[in-house]
Amino acid sequence: QSLSLLFHRTNFLSSSLQLSVDATGCRFLRALLPSDLAGRSKGGQAQNGSVDVLDLLQGWGSGVGTYDDFNTIDWVREKSKDRDRHREISRKRRQSITALLLSVSDAFSGWLLMLLIGLMSGALAGGIDIAAHWLTDLKEGVCLNGFWFNHEHCCWNSKETTFQERHRCPQWKSWAELTVGVTEGASAYVVNYLMYVIWALLFSFLAVFLVRAFAPYACGSGIPEIKTILSGFIIRGYLGKWTLVIKTITLVLAVASGLSLGKEGPLVHVACCCGNIFCHLFTKYRKNEAKRREVLSAASAVGVSVAFGAPIGGVLFSLEEVSYYFPLKTLWRSFFAALVAAFTLRSINPFGNSRLVLFYVEFHTPWHLLELFPFVLLGIFGGLWGALFIRANIAWCRRRKATRLGRYPVLEVAVVSLATAVLAFPNDYTRMSGSELISELFNDCSLLDSSKLCDYGPLAKGGEPAGNLSEGTVGQAERPAGPGVYTAVWQLAMALLFKMAITVVTFGMKVPSGLFIPSMLAYYHHDWDMFHGWCSPGAHCITPGLYAMLGAAACLGGVTRMTVSLVVIMFELTGGLEYIVPLMAAVMTSKWVADALGREGIYEAHIRLNGYPFLEPKEEFVHKTLATDVMRPRRSDPPLSVVTQDGMTVEELEGLISDTSYSGFPVVVSPESHRLVGFVLRRDLVISIDNARRCQEGIVGVSRVIFTEHTPVEAQGAPPPLNLRAILDLSPLAITDHTPMEITVDIFRKLGLRQCLVTQNGRLLGIITKKDILKHMAQMANRDPDSILFN
Amino acid sequence: QSLSLLFHRTNFLSSSLQLSVDATGCRFLRALLPSDLAGRSKGGQAQNGSVDVLDLLQGWGSGVGTYDDFNTIDWVREKSKDRDRHREISRKRRQSITALLLSVSDAFSGWLLMLLIGLMSGALAGGIDIAAHWLTDLKEGVCLNGFWFNHEHCCWNSKETTFQERHRCPQWKSWAELTVGVTEGASAYVVNYLMYVIWALLFSFLAVFLVRAFAPYACGSGIPEIKTILSGFIIRGYLGKWTLVIKTITLVLAVASGLSLGKEGPLVHVACCCGNIFCHLFTKYRKNEAKRREVLSAASAVGVSVAFGAPIGGVLFSLEEVSYYFPLKTLWRSFFAALVAAFTLRSINPFGNSRLVLFYVEFHTPWHLLELFPFVLLGIFGGLWGALFIRANIAWCRRRKATRLGRYPVLEVAVVSLATAVLAFPNDYTRMSGSELISELFNDCSLLDSSKLCDYGPLAKGGEPAGNLSEGTVGQAERPAGPGVYTAVWQLAMALLFKMAITVVTFGMKVPSGLFIPSMLAYYHHDWDMFHGWCSPGAHCITPGLYAMLGAAACLGGVTRMTVSLVVIMFELTGGLEYIVPLMAAVMTSKWVADALGREGIYEAHIRLNGYPFLEPKEEFVHKTLATDVMRPRRSDPPLSVVTQDGMTVEELEGLISDTSYSGFPVVVSPESHRLVGFVLRRDLVISIDNARRCQEGIVGVSRVIFTEHTPVEAQGAPPPLNLRAILDLSPLAITDHTPMEITVDIFRKLGLRQCLVTQNGRLLGIITKKDILKHMAQMANRDPDSILFN
Repeated sequence: QSLSLLFHRTNFLSSSLQLSVDATGCRFLRALLPSDLAGRSKGGQAQNGSVDVLDLLQGWGSGVGTYDDFNTIDWVREKSKDRDRHREISRKRRQSITALLLSVSDAFSGWLLMLLIGLMSGALAGGIDIAAHWLTDLKEGVCLNGFWFNHEHCCWNSKETTFQERHRCPQWKSWAELTVGVTEGASAYVVNYLMYVIWALLFSFLAVFLVRAFAPYACGSGIPEIKTILSGFIIRGYLGKWTLVIKTITLVLAVASGLSLGKEGPLVHVACCCGNIFCHLFTKYRKNEAKRREVLSAASAVGVSVAFGAPIGGVLFSLEEVSYYFPLKTLWRSFFAALVAAFTLRSINPFGNSRLVLFYVEFHTPWHLLELFPFVLLGIFGGLWGALFIRANIAWCRRRKATRLGRYPVLEVAVVSLATAVLAFPNDYTRMSGSELISELFNDCSLLDSSKLCDYGPLAKGGEPAGNLSEGTVGQAERPAGPGVYTAVWQLAMALLFKMAITVVTFGMKVPSGLFIPSMLAYYHHDWDMFHGWCSPGAHCITPGLYAMLGAAACLGGVTRMTVSLVVIMFELTGGLEYIVPLMAAVMTSKWVADALGREGIYEAHIRLNGYPFLEPKEEFVHKTLATDVMRPRRSDPPLSVVTQDGMTVEELEGLISDTSYSGFPVVVSPESHRLVGFVLRRDLVISIDNARRCQEGIVGVSRVIFTEHTPVEAQGAPPPLNLRAILDLSPLAITDHTPMEITVDIFRKLGLRQCLVTQNGRLLGIITKKDILKHMAQMANRDPDSILFN
Repeated sequence: QSLSLLFHRTNFLSSSLQLSVDATGCRFLRALLPSDLAGRSKGGQAQNGSVDVLDLLQGWGSGVGTYDDFNTIDWVREKSKDRDRHREISRKRRQSITALLLSVSDAFSGWLLMLLIGLMSGALAGGIDIAAHWLTDLKEGVCLNGFWFNHEHCCWNSKETTFQERHRCPQWKSWAELTVGVTEGASAYVVNYLMYVIWALLFSFLAVFLVRAFAPYACGSGIPEIKTILSGFIIRGYLGKWTLVIKTITLVLAVASGLSLGKEGPLVHVACCCGNIFCHLFTKYRKNEAKRREVLSAASAVGVSVAFGAPIGGVLFSLEEVSYYFPLKTLWRSFFAALVAAFTLRSINPFGNSRLVLFYVEFHTPWHLLELFPFVLLGIFGGLWGALFIRANIAWCRRRKATRLGRYPVLEVAVVSLATAVLAFPNDYTRMSGSELISELFNDCSLLDSSKLCDYGPLAKGGEPAGNLSEGTVGQAERPAGPGVYTAVWQLAMALLFKMAITVVTFGMKVPSGLFIPSMLAYYHHDWDMFHGWCSPGAHCITPGLYAMLGAAACLGGVTRMTVSLVVIMFELTGGLEYIVPLMAAVMTSKWVADALGREGIYEAHIRLNGYPFLEPKEEFVHKTLATDVMRPRRSDPPLSVVTQDGMTVEELEGLISDTSYSGFPVVVSPESHRLVGFVLRRDLVISIDNARRCQEGIVGVSRVIFTEHTPVEAQGAPPPLNLRAILDLSPLAITDHTPMEITVDIFRKLGLRQCLVTQNGRLLGIITKKDILKHMAQMANRDPDSILFN
């Protein structure tokens, strides 16, 4: 009823005063003006009014209650706003059938949104897969039946039956065949080499050009930024439609160019863009930053779901790695969206195998308990690699920022992709795309397989360990290895070293790039197989594919520090409970080893590198400082800038605003008592005073600004006071100066605060903002670097 | 250094004063006495002292900082305590190798604990399965090779090959064969019937007797209580060793007696008991209620993991359904423990099929998109049943509490189990145990199958829908149904009705009982098959097992309101992504329908029935009340009882304690200013004063009690003051009186508070406890019952 009262007043005033003012800026002021009268007439319920008015203001586009770019949102306020909206709908529900239907549709809009995100992301992921596949093949040749066919589709109707022959159908022409007319020999090789490099350069140049020209936010993996956004930061345009369009196109180009990067991170970014764009369809989500972040959490689950074909893993990834505020309702909805996306992708069927990913694998050989030892070694290796990769990559990125390198991003991309293409072409395993490579490495050999890794003599058909032969002791005459195996092992070792080096440089460039760690380290499997001299000869006791997969999981674990979600993703890829224990062993060791060498994952490291205000929810604050050590003002600083509830004029306030740059001011009873009344945000204050000056009768510089419930009667002749209680936050959280920082950090994290006031024996003493806490945490971490090690 | 200083003082005093006092009660007082001196000498660091001293006190067994039975823990304090302990270890780590090793072992003790819990729970679950199987078979007959063999093991070496014949090996004698010597005919039937009933009665009587005599907490499902305990409540002995032993034994007996109950809930309870008992091995967990609850969260995941053979589902169950505080670290550890338990269970192999559960299923037929309609109908049915079941069960339990029925629990169990046994025996489907039944219903028919449900004519071999035939139109001549199918359908319908009724009565009795909803409702599948007239005749388009599974999931979803975890559990049972969409559809509909009819799940309903102080984390508080409406004292109450920081004597404090029953008192600067200094707990106050009276020189009734940092100098001749700053919580959380209750409830939930102080313009106004909030929420829910409906 307080709302309708205000509306009445507004109408009354606007008709009686007949002011000519702009519609958006001033109407709300007229609503504010009589708020004290309204408050008085409502009696006991007056205190409830403020939130409603805030809602009202926002609805009228006055800007009160919104946020600036690169600012942190106030979770508590956003959630309150949503509950108000919800209450309003519930209240109206009983009044009419339309309102009832509206409330039902409101309740289901979240599900509809999830459905849309799932469909759209699944479709986009399918499109990206198909396009990238086609462009990748374009580097090698073209289909005569139609240039839009990729190699596989081109040869689909060919009569050859073996894998080997099927790839050599007459319709598919390599560039050498088309231009110089030969398929073999040095000239053909040179032409193919050249075309490969030219196409790769073209793709990567196009990608970096598009990013630079249209959507600078489309570069990189996007996960560090999404983590920061989900934690409550505002980066306008990061999830906008331009970013979506450009990121989708450039992701295809970047993957096709053969750069050492993956599509996982960018797919999460793409899904989040979809989520953000669809949010604009529903008022519930458009206007509420907290609700929108729930949707984005679900969208990031969708991204992983389509990247790996693992819906459950995606949800756990979102929960474990990306999300900040993840209520159970979101868990359920994310799961739904991830499923919809996975099934959309499957009905598009981009790989023609009814699977969601190219590298779906099925193992049938059980593993031996003694194999746990090499599994753990793989984990150690993965952890070492992870820690090393993070350090090298961060050092490179820092160098890029500091030196002149950072000024020529296009050139950098061109050089890196030239180097990648030139070095990659001679080696079969680097020439093929990442997904193909994973697929080849993860799978067991079968009889029809044309892969060089399966090039054994007739006695050793399927499932034989390739690695045992690389030992050099070919004494086991029953398993002759063809020359292909030796070549493959040699090439894989080269490929491993090459990919390791090039990925460090690639990640963080100005093109869409995900971490393609899986492909990279999967190579390493053959070396570990050497440890299997004890395996009884001739027995099918080792699955090389399993080792490849474990290596990939361990390395990815070392780099990202994912745990459960990684195991579940791999579990969904392999589809058997059988291999969970090896996975767990490898991933766990990898995480421990990597944690011992450096406590941050790659995403956290990039967040810190870029200086985003992100309060890590996983890391515990272990130092023994108190709120009084962190709060401002410090002992040497000037005293805290406060606003008194009824003692300041408009001019004084404007002076305070221009003299300081704080984003808000505490309101106290009087400067002497320092008893806290509330908190007022700078932005709200500026807008309100500005509007009052323009629209409200009699507001001049010497008008008193009042924050109390009842406006006092001014002396005769004095200008009317300006009551701003409506913009006053009456429930600021305050802690005592003795509160340990560990508890303070916990409160900030769990409640999603932006600032917190500090009191001592009931007197206001200072203020702690999120930035103060981050600064303090960084200080303490530098002072005592290994304090967190055994946490 | 503050610690060592105190120790020095203590030693100095105890040697100089030569008081003869009891060791545990008084030493700490001497430590307290000079705390102000220590404080003074330390200067700026003084404020840190209080927590250390608390630790010290607790270590000496004085009881300060512990909790009474049936009280709520203070999460913030517990977590602080753990961080202090952690800091202490980290600090010492640099001093010696031993301390370093100690710190490493401390860091890994959590993992060791998880390993132990996993092994133990897996072993117990295996033992329970085997024992229950044996006892169940004992109701029908005995093995001549050795009475300890169950029916299946007894006939293991029999030469018969079909399933039908294998169960009729000569070594296995039914009771009729043994006593009257005939296997067929009326007399055999009567003897078997009688023996069945007698054994069932014996088992259930033994179960209820053991529970009553040794461990009253071993009754029921345990999940409501575990939820309450995890939310921070203390119920001493609920997870003790006696409860574990008795629950394990009686669970076997209860399952074997044929009562309509399941072992899922009790297995969670058993796993939590294991967790709690193993916690006592590690100081880290023994002494910290918050850390122990992390372990218990993991243990509940283990319980579900062994009950359903679904480790991932178990973890999600713990996250979604049971846990209150679930940090990511716990997620990872729970997963580890759940896996260990699942593999332990598998190596025990209780079902002889290398599977974790008896009812592991594999479907091969894909489902049709049009089938989504009956899936949704199944969901609606499940939701209706869920809501109905909860109401009926709660009404029955309330009746039991209110009437004389509650006074004769043994008689009640005897009557119910007599009824169950008498009614169950004539029907094959109720006579068999729950797991067997599920296994029979979930599985597709195969050629060798002897089940009556698969009794088709020669043309209709495997996978044919049984239900189509129950339509009565046997016009489809190509699929003749044997008489077995008709009998089966009739028997299943009877079984369904019977189980529905008996389960309502059974759940909540004084024996271990889980919800065996899956078995119960799985029956219903055949009715829904009637909707499949549109299925093209002769095509293998319907999988009855799938319908059974969906029905089970929908009903379980309706009763417990589980969502993701239920889908994942079922997914792990079936092992294919294929059926996630039907599952999702059924479970989602079921939850919506059930939520529309009543907003609580069965566990929440039982929590409310028993009046446990549980603050539901899922339900949002939607009402527009303020902290001032909830806080005490109310307007008509006497003013708030406060303690002043330096103005009260020992006598006055003792008077305050005996006059009131509050569990704590705010400490203020002076009664006039009402400026908040801190909060002191009643229990700590009582213990400290008591100890000071007994041990500290010169403490008499008129001694002043001081809570300030510096002890003021007393007037000449006055007794020395008692400084209790050490037990003062200097960082109590305070909110303003204008804080909306929705935010207050959020703060309570997220920070795990026990109480919160309320201030107005910097003055202390009142206090809100968790109980006040629960009471207020109940009030508001009653006033506006459907407010939560569309949330």
